[in-house]
Amino acid sequence: MNKYSVKAFGTAAPEADLKPMNIERREVTAKDVEIDILYCGVCHSDLHTARNEWGGTVYPNVPGHEIVGRITKVGSEVTKFQVGDLAGVGCMVDSCRECESCKEGLEQYCENGNVQTYNGHEKYLNQQTFGGYSERVVVDQDFVLKIPENLDLAATAPLLCAGITTYSPLRHWNVGPGKKVGIVGIGGLGHMGVKIAKAMGAYVVVITTSTGKVEDAKRLGADEVILSSNEEQMRANAGTLHFILDCVSAQHNINAYLSLLKRDGSLTLVGAPEHPLPVAPFSLIPTRRSFAGSMIGGIAETQEMLNFCGQHNITSDIELIRMQDINNAYERLLKGDVKYRFVIDMASLKNEVNPSE
Amino acid sequence: MNKYSVKAFGTAAPEADLKPMNIERREVTAKDVEIDILYCGVCHSDLHTARNEWGGTVYPNVPGHEIVGRITKVGSEVTKFQVGDLAGVGCMVDSCRECESCKEGLEQYCENGNVQTYNGHEKYLNQQTFGGYSERVVVDQDFVLKIPENLDLAATAPLLCAGITTYSPLRHWNVGPGKKVGIVGIGGLGHMGVKIAKAMGAYVVVITTSTGKVEDAKRLGADEVILSSNEEQMRANAGTLHFILDCVSAQHNINAYLSLLKRDGSLTLVGAPEHPLPVAPFSLIPTRRSFAGSMIGGIAETQEMLNFCGQHNITSDIELIRMQDINNAYERLLKGDVKYRFVIDMASLKNEVNPSE
Repeated sequence: MNKYSVKAFGTAAPEADLKPMNIERREVTAKDVEIDILYCGVCHSDLHTARNEWGGTVYPNVPGHEIVGRITKVGSEVTKFQVGDLAGVGCMVDSCRECESCKEGLEQYCENGNVQTYNGHEKYLNQQTFGGYSERVVVDQDFVLKIPENLDLAATAPLLCAGITTYSPLRHWNVGPGKKVGIVGIGGLGHMGVKIAKAMGAYVVVITTSTGKVEDAKRLGADEVILSSNEEQMRANAGTLHFILDCVSAQHNINAYLSLLKRDGSLTLVGAPEHPLPVAPFSLIPTRRSFAGSMIGGIAETQEMLNFCGQHNITSDIELIRMQDINNAYERLLKGDVKYRFVIDMASLKNEVNPSE
Repeated sequence: MNKYSVKAFGTAAPEADLKPMNIERREVTAKDVEIDILYCGVCHSDLHTARNEWGGTVYPNVPGHEIVGRITKVGSEVTKFQVGDLAGVGCMVDSCRECESCKEGLEQYCENGNVQTYNGHEKYLNQQTFGGYSERVVVDQDFVLKIPENLDLAATAPLLCAGITTYSPLRHWNVGPGKKVGIVGIGGLGHMGVKIAKAMGAYVVVITTSTGKVEDAKRLGADEVILSSNEEQMRANAGTLHFILDCVSAQHNINAYLSLLKRDGSLTLVGAPEHPLPVAPFSLIPTRRSFAGSMIGGIAETQEMLNFCGQHNITSDIELIRMQDINNAYERLLKGDVKYRFVIDMASLKNEVNPSE
């Protein structure tokens, strides 16, 4: 298998800062495309993986799964893309394609384990997959997305993870006109949830602990804001929501949020708190409520989401950073100090002096 | 409002044994029927309420909401029943009839609070409602069920609570042919769940902590039994079930059971453990599973369930007791020492010497 070297930023160990390194990419095979990465979003999963907080990180690790760029090379059997096309890559670069989930277009739930964009297994080179904090990436065309031409490209990058992670459950639980939808946790995921639920035609209620976020929630499109710290407001809104998208990754009182659901309502977790959340049986039984979870979305649905965002002119609110600022960005991410997603301008990496030189 | 006295068994205080007492029933109003109670099942809720374990019990309390008998009187506008008909009463004797839930036939989720068969509010006499541990009961025809003539009457009584509590979620979550369904907790509820799920055409898997229940589970209709204490069996069955009906009312490790669900599967609680159950986000997110609850069923669905049980010849496995044995039965219930439901033969109450004489 032919391969070549590209510049990247990654970690050598859980405690290590990210630093410049060279990694290898395969040359495009028949069905691959090569993408010149222009922007890459910074997801909290990047930090978890770089620091081995979920265990299982293989080093060196190059994070990044909110990738947008332009196609620079296509394999001989590529039919879906041409050189020069805008393209995106999200959390997956392959899957088994044979299990029930893959056949249903739900590659995110591949029963044999899909190939994650980073810290997965790159079968051609028999090494770990490397993510988007790099100059170029080579991906099978079936896992590459078309990017609407009308959107700001840097602000589009976060759609590949934050966008689809919120879009998929909103669609799955039938959010739309006539539905009253709660969004908990206004960060990278939640702010996309507000924009997308609003564009789907729902009445959007943001539930936040922070008075400081009320105005911003309304700017993002919320019809109403409930302060979760205000017991009276919480009581007054009990049993009013059809669906709640819970984007909080810290521990939180799930029963308080469940109380806001109508009969047959669902609260779906997309943030992943570290510890189990205690659920009172009486939060569920007397109103047939559900507490659920959802993970990113399939490739076809990711394309649907990108097209939807193109039509509705939806992108992420971002702060553009240089690749060299990533360690500082991680520290700010831990403090929640970003509105609402860091995106790396990959031109900064291309200008980086080659570390092996 | 005209009223009359009937013999009953009830409690005067949380710590008190049940003992004979007289209670008052209203004379039938235009839409009421009077039922001569022949059998009444013993539900764990009876014990919880008699002992004020959920709070809010008004004394004296007469439990019992698995009532079957024959109609002895009908009001002038009663159209659905005639004197001599078999009839049943479950957990509710009225509801607001105006809210969204009532209009959808889901009176169990009445948004203004339905009237429970016992410890509810009897508006005609302005007193607490008294349940089925009594000679007769007077109920609005709209909350009275028709009982199939082909079933053993005593063994039919538990269908009014244990039957509908398991039937309703099995129907709601589309259990039927081609579905693999787990039933956790083989007691009053669970043993009905096995019989009903099997009759619905599902492949039924009982999950039990106890090797002693394996044989009985198969006799009840289980196609397969998993021992939850056997980690290897649990691992081998991970991701195999479409739906799990969880009938356990003690604390239990919900994550172990959730791991048995396929993608998009639901685990639904019908037993009500006292304390919150810790749910790990990773039990839900990577496979879009749901953790839900369900409570009894609506009146129309209860009738549907009774007809279904008539067609499939399904009744409860019962141990028939005398009214005078109720305190001992409660002690045995606490130990799980019943296969699988106590039913009171109400002839024993009718022969009781009147306590006020």
